[in-house]
Amino acid sequence: MTLLAVGSIAFDDLETPAGIRTNLLGGSATYFSMSARNFCPVQLVAVVGDDFGHTEESVFLERSINLDGVIRQPGNSFHWKGSYGSDMNEARTIKTDLNVFADFVPKLPEHYRNAPYLFLGNIDPRLQLEVVTQMTTRPKWIALDTMNYWIDGSRSALEKVLKEIDILLINEAEAKSLAKENNVLKAAKIITSLGPSKVVVKRGEYGALLVAPNICFPVPAVPMENVIDPTGAGDTFAGGFLGYLASRGDLEEPSLRYAMLAGTVAASFTIENFGIEKIASISTNDIQERLKRFLKILGIAEF
Amino acid sequence: MTLLAVGSIAFDDLETPAGIRTNLLGGSATYFSMSARNFCPVQLVAVVGDDFGHTEESVFLERSINLDGVIRQPGNSFHWKGSYGSDMNEARTIKTDLNVFADFVPKLPEHYRNAPYLFLGNIDPRLQLEVVTQMTTRPKWIALDTMNYWIDGSRSALEKVLKEIDILLINEAEAKSLAKENNVLKAAKIITSLGPSKVVVKRGEYGALLVAPNICFPVPAVPMENVIDPTGAGDTFAGGFLGYLASRGDLEEPSLRYAMLAGTVAASFTIENFGIEKIASISTNDIQERLKRFLKILGIAEF
Repeated sequence: MTLLAVGSIAFDDLETPAGIRTNLLGGSATYFSMSARNFCPVQLVAVVGDDFGHTEESVFLERSINLDGVIRQPGNSFHWKGSYGSDMNEARTIKTDLNVFADFVPKLPEHYRNAPYLFLGNIDPRLQLEVVTQMTTRPKWIALDTMNYWIDGSRSALEKVLKEIDILLINEAEAKSLAKENNVLKAAKIITSLGPSKVVVKRGEYGALLVAPNICFPVPAVPMENVIDPTGAGDTFAGGFLGYLASRGDLEEPSLRYAMLAGTVAASFTIENFGIEKIASISTNDIQERLKRFLKILGIAEF
Repeated sequence: MTLLAVGSIAFDDLETPAGIRTNLLGGSATYFSMSARNFCPVQLVAVVGDDFGHTEESVFLERSINLDGVIRQPGNSFHWKGSYGSDMNEARTIKTDLNVFADFVPKLPEHYRNAPYLFLGNIDPRLQLEVVTQMTTRPKWIALDTMNYWIDGSRSALEKVLKEIDILLINEAEAKSLAKENNVLKAAKIITSLGPSKVVVKRGEYGALLVAPNICFPVPAVPMENVIDPTGAGDTFAGGFLGYLASRGDLEEPSLRYAMLAGTVAASFTIENFGIEKIASISTNDIQERLKRFLKILGIAEF
């Protein structure tokens, strides 16, 4: 039930209405794994620079996240600087330094190549496809995240890798852009014709929408008063959603529905503090307890 | 269990990606009553001009909506012209002709003045307060809708009438503006300190959020592929929400929760065609059936 995840490990400078923080451990693979580790064993594939030291490594290792697939390169790690306005809905990128990430070519250690579950985080679709080809056995399922940069600039490569996957996780605006359709439900259905049979549309503070054959499940976000930093909420959702699915082992409707709720609840922790501070500090039990409360809020009986 | 509603009856010119329509019967009281009549008897207070003829009158009377409180004035009815871009999220107002609505002073017929339930649609808060004072007995509950125009321009009058009411229905951006707080949950809680013990935040295509003491209930919108015209969706929601509550007679948590779902489902009909074409053509049974499907989609057991 190991979940193999490919993505970025980064250092972030963040400014939100709650304050300013610099050099926080971030990146999609970081948020994803801090969330997924609550549900299943996680193996990471990423690249880091010299600035990724023992302290950063410990954050993962102490939480049993396997880093054998993380490549070390001379230079600095990926660095992102962003800010949020008062509505916290959208990040404004101030600066992106790809650094060692610019030449990242994932190379899976031998013992990663038969992982049963694979998450291809938001990187060049050509590299996502490369990871798929490195697997010795086709995983039971493959999930993928992408963004406008690849939808606009590398559509044909993206369409190629979409044919290989089972689950697409994608932001609402990007789903509309990928499908060239403004109605979100129609857009998700169009995407299911491009390859992935399951599409999860991430809607930020409005939650998420799952569309699959005979399933359409909208889930609102957990109402939160204390929103400090929304960075990584989408990756945390993905980690909870896919981590739960990996722990269950099937993609049947009850599993998918519960996974949507697990991902939503996981994301609600990340936004409560800067960076991974909150999500890294909680236990599976904390998620279970908030999940129980969330089911009660929604009026959904326990599964 | 009669619900007395004050608001506007208008003629609308609409442009959406699905087409153009002119002179459609619209206005907040129209959408509200077409929705609420599925749950309880409705009495309307509004003003119309010479252009409101027998045809328009019949639309209400054939659906048992009482028009004794609708005043006729020489001149034209309120006229609104608006358009929607491809995302349908926000109306762009092209033209507003208040016409007879400019000098509207609600005057309740004697037999309206002891209605048990009262909805004060989005009009000048001074007039909303005037309606309250015309009631011979204080209704069991009073609900109110408002908008930025009054929040920005008539705050003290609005704050005065808010003290008199039990339920506020308000758009998300307007809730934030009224509370001077960008977190929607915090904003709703602040508003409950201004008078209404129950606040319903309308979030358009993302559904609605109910906040009341010990209750926080977010409901996503019904996922719809066929969105023709979003005009009146918020008023239709209010009609379903309050119509259901009037039929139940109490404001306990189960009633409020079910009302949120009833309003959400009612609104999903309005957007399926231009103006009131769809919502006026359905029966209570149609709402019940879609509500049943919606509960199944959400995973909520029948109440």
